[in-house]
Amino acid sequence: MKQTELSEWLLTHLTEHLRPGSQVPTQLPSDKSRFAEPRRPHIAKFRARMPNHRRVYEAIRRAITEQILPSGSRLPSTRSLADDLNLSRNTILAAFDQLLDEGYVAAKTGSGTYVTYKQTDDFSKNIRATNTININNNLALSKRGLAAADGINAHEVQPFTPGEDDYSRFPIELWRRLLNRQWRTLNPSLLDSSHEGGYLPLRQAIADYLRVSRAVNLTVDQVLITSGTQQSIDLCARLLTDVNDIAWVENPCYWAARRVLEINGLQLHALAVDKEGMAPSLEDFRVKPRLIYTTPSHQYPKGVVMSYGRRHLLLDYAHNSGAWIIEDDYDSEFRFEGRPISSLQGMDEHGRVLYLGTFSKVMYPGIRLGYMVIPQQLVAAFKNGLYELQRPGQVMIQAALADFIEEGHFASHIRRLRQTYAERRRLLQTALTPIASVGARLSMVDSGLHLVVEFDAEVDDVKVATMAAQQGLRVYPLSNYCVGVNPEKGLIIGYAYAATESIMQYGNVLAEVIQAAIKGQQ
Amino acid sequence: MKQTELSEWLLTHLTEHLRPGSQVPTQLPSDKSRFAEPRRPHIAKFRARMPNHRRVYEAIRRAITEQILPSGSRLPSTRSLADDLNLSRNTILAAFDQLLDEGYVAAKTGSGTYVTYKQTDDFSKNIRATNTININNNLALSKRGLAAADGINAHEVQPFTPGEDDYSRFPIELWRRLLNRQWRTLNPSLLDSSHEGGYLPLRQAIADYLRVSRAVNLTVDQVLITSGTQQSIDLCARLLTDVNDIAWVENPCYWAARRVLEINGLQLHALAVDKEGMAPSLEDFRVKPRLIYTTPSHQYPKGVVMSYGRRHLLLDYAHNSGAWIIEDDYDSEFRFEGRPISSLQGMDEHGRVLYLGTFSKVMYPGIRLGYMVIPQQLVAAFKNGLYELQRPGQVMIQAALADFIEEGHFASHIRRLRQTYAERRRLLQTALTPIASVGARLSMVDSGLHLVVEFDAEVDDVKVATMAAQQGLRVYPLSNYCVGVNPEKGLIIGYAYAATESIMQYGNVLAEVIQAAIKGQQ
Repeated sequence: MKQTELSEWLLTHLTEHLRPGSQVPTQLPSDKSRFAEPRRPHIAKFRARMPNHRRVYEAIRRAITEQILPSGSRLPSTRSLADDLNLSRNTILAAFDQLLDEGYVAAKTGSGTYVTYKQTDDFSKNIRATNTININNNLALSKRGLAAADGINAHEVQPFTPGEDDYSRFPIELWRRLLNRQWRTLNPSLLDSSHEGGYLPLRQAIADYLRVSRAVNLTVDQVLITSGTQQSIDLCARLLTDVNDIAWVENPCYWAARRVLEINGLQLHALAVDKEGMAPSLEDFRVKPRLIYTTPSHQYPKGVVMSYGRRHLLLDYAHNSGAWIIEDDYDSEFRFEGRPISSLQGMDEHGRVLYLGTFSKVMYPGIRLGYMVIPQQLVAAFKNGLYELQRPGQVMIQAALADFIEEGHFASHIRRLRQTYAERRRLLQTALTPIASVGARLSMVDSGLHLVVEFDAEVDDVKVATMAAQQGLRVYPLSNYCVGVNPEKGLIIGYAYAATESIMQYGNVLAEVIQAAIKGQQ
Repeated sequence: MKQTELSEWLLTHLTEHLRPGSQVPTQLPSDKSRFAEPRRPHIAKFRARMPNHRRVYEAIRRAITEQILPSGSRLPSTRSLADDLNLSRNTILAAFDQLLDEGYVAAKTGSGTYVTYKQTDDFSKNIRATNTININNNLALSKRGLAAADGINAHEVQPFTPGEDDYSRFPIELWRRLLNRQWRTLNPSLLDSSHEGGYLPLRQAIADYLRVSRAVNLTVDQVLITSGTQQSIDLCARLLTDVNDIAWVENPCYWAARRVLEINGLQLHALAVDKEGMAPSLEDFRVKPRLIYTTPSHQYPKGVVMSYGRRHLLLDYAHNSGAWIIEDDYDSEFRFEGRPISSLQGMDEHGRVLYLGTFSKVMYPGIRLGYMVIPQQLVAAFKNGLYELQRPGQVMIQAALADFIEEGHFASHIRRLRQTYAERRRLLQTALTPIASVGARLSMVDSGLHLVVEFDAEVDDVKVATMAAQQGLRVYPLSNYCVGVNPEKGLIIGYAYAATESIMQYGNVLAEVIQAAIKGQQ
């Protein structure tokens, strides 16, 4: 390659490095536009800029690695390059120095600078020879990695999307002030990562709340702060199970929990759910679990409350077989009628239950704060495992949340949410009344943030859900939550996200879709 | 049990439930007192209080489950209990109702209320009979769980503790304003959990920074935000390896990284480190790794920069064998002399390197934000795995950090930190000069936040570290970072945490301890 060609090539690539990044794109479009005016697109105010010597270094390095300048070829003199590229000679010298340091080039006294980089040296060849097994480069992921990568992670939020809550009701201004106060009166130790399972006053506030509201039987040291239910389940699986151990789950089951257990290499054994909750048969008891994942307060998604007898059955079984029970007390804050039923944990006399809760529904999803109540004998192991695997932190947010609870805002926020959601639920139930005409049944769950509509076995609920989606209403088919043959048919309809003033309108559309769909299938 | 005895028992336990929590303890004593006056002990302003009917319910339930009231026994009348306990009859009725609901008691018309709870029913006995294998209840943790629980998690921070940085230099007031501004001008979508690998403008800012400062070769979609290096390594292990796969690590090695790999069930193969960095021998190449964990920019803890030849050797090997390389570019912001060396990732032409960085050193540890740069072919899998396993969030903090970087505060904060740490390093080097008299060598690492002192092989470095700890100086023995026989001997001394004005004084004490300890061992 001639000197001028090289200079031209370098000039092109210098220019490339002048613009290290394209414009910062604006936020992805969000469906949550009803909150407020979106703020102005986030334009980068500062563009990182490479120093010139660095750009020259990068361009020459690339010329070498791409063999535009093959090994043994001589670099142009620094002076001529400086002229060609219209840069100072010192700039070129600095770039050459770095190339020398990193072994791309070598200087021979009196005769200039030569490329010394070789794509492959003899030692590498030797090594390659030892590689008798030719590992397929395309087999990128491990077996457990494939389980984690294979997701159904389509994220689209519409009215009635289950699992979406209305955090526009969250008292943002109050929360901002609490956070701001923590930062103003800073206790510097709160900037550290957390070694003891979370911020102590928050753990104390949670312990008080659970003792009173959920009859959980605990001392504060049993409470660990996690970044949410996902992490809590993951930690249970990692500390209490090994690959190929058996976990009992409910059928139908909360799919996100099932995913975490699967990714941890567990074999899932799905148990039927009847009107008393998770219903183990004698056959099931022969498939001995290491872990039992259950939602006793209101089964997810069907809403059944586990009976007293079934609770004692499970607890006795866990005690005698050495299994652990994960009690996911999701949405326990949202019970609209009747007294809250006690937690399973509170009935456990032998320390077999790990109780899980989260703040992402009551506060906002991105807060990433949940909690676990750990049996006494596991506390030290879980604290350590949490620290080793996650280095938890975000203690400032934990401190603000402790204030939020202790000053009574949490209780009154839940009260307001409960009123809001109860009204939406009532309106949606009214709107869906007509579906009885086609044999669809509205299940009378009195808690949680979704309704369940049950169809006859021959109805294709996936098709009904698809038709609803075409009307802009994302509901989930019940059969998707089930495993095995003969899944139950129906729809899971979240009502927490749709605004109160429009829920009747959406509900009417949904009722029409359901009626038309079922009539069309008959 | 007589009626009066029962009432007394219940009264005692009602009183217990009157005080559901003890006083919230004050913050744990912190060594970080030099920051500022600690704020007033965090006293709970709000004490959760159980309603009376709940307390009665709890006390009776406990009497039943502890068989103070055995199955078949008759409860006192609600009227007499109300008198004895000095509560309204409605309160007692509400408690009885709940006990009825939950099946602890049954009402027989005209004859009162009877305990129906049995510790074991026939069905449970049946189940127990099927439990032919008697699982040991004490075997609480799984094999992988034992690995996670078995930690060396003593957290004590003193001057010279490696891994502790001085976040008192962090511009807290500026940071508070940036956070506060994000909350004032709230983009509500930032309250959601994060589906796309993190907040896009932050990922863009990181991409720009890495491209310019570390010669990382990337597009913005390759950047994922994690909650720090621990989580990044964990995610790599979970997605790219299976249990019993082999991982290469350096010897000595960053112990926290080793822990995460071990907990993931990997077999660690430790490679020697020489003056060119990680030094695989032909024997090592026969132990084919699935993953290679390395710190090429400055080996942890020894500080060696991996040579150009070694880098290409590793990259070639990974390309040909299908191994993945984790490049942990820890502390890359803190290089005090010379030009920064390019990242290994920037030299990788075949997408085998996963590049890791963290904000916990430059910002503050509890911020829990780090990043990975993922090869293009793995991006979708890692985004999904991150979401399935962790539901990442904290987007508000990511947004404030994006502002912090884009407005130039990050660059100037690093500049200030670098000056501070360079001075501390210089002072500590001066203070430690006398140790040469006993044959200890101060390694001239020019980056990172610790110094390495090397001893002769016969010195017991654990004993030296213990003697230093007795003087209130926590340094780590080099042999603890090593695996296998004949570990290297020396000390790892962090200088980021000790205040500049006191480092000479502490350094003099440490120098004396080292001299005395080595003389005592000769």
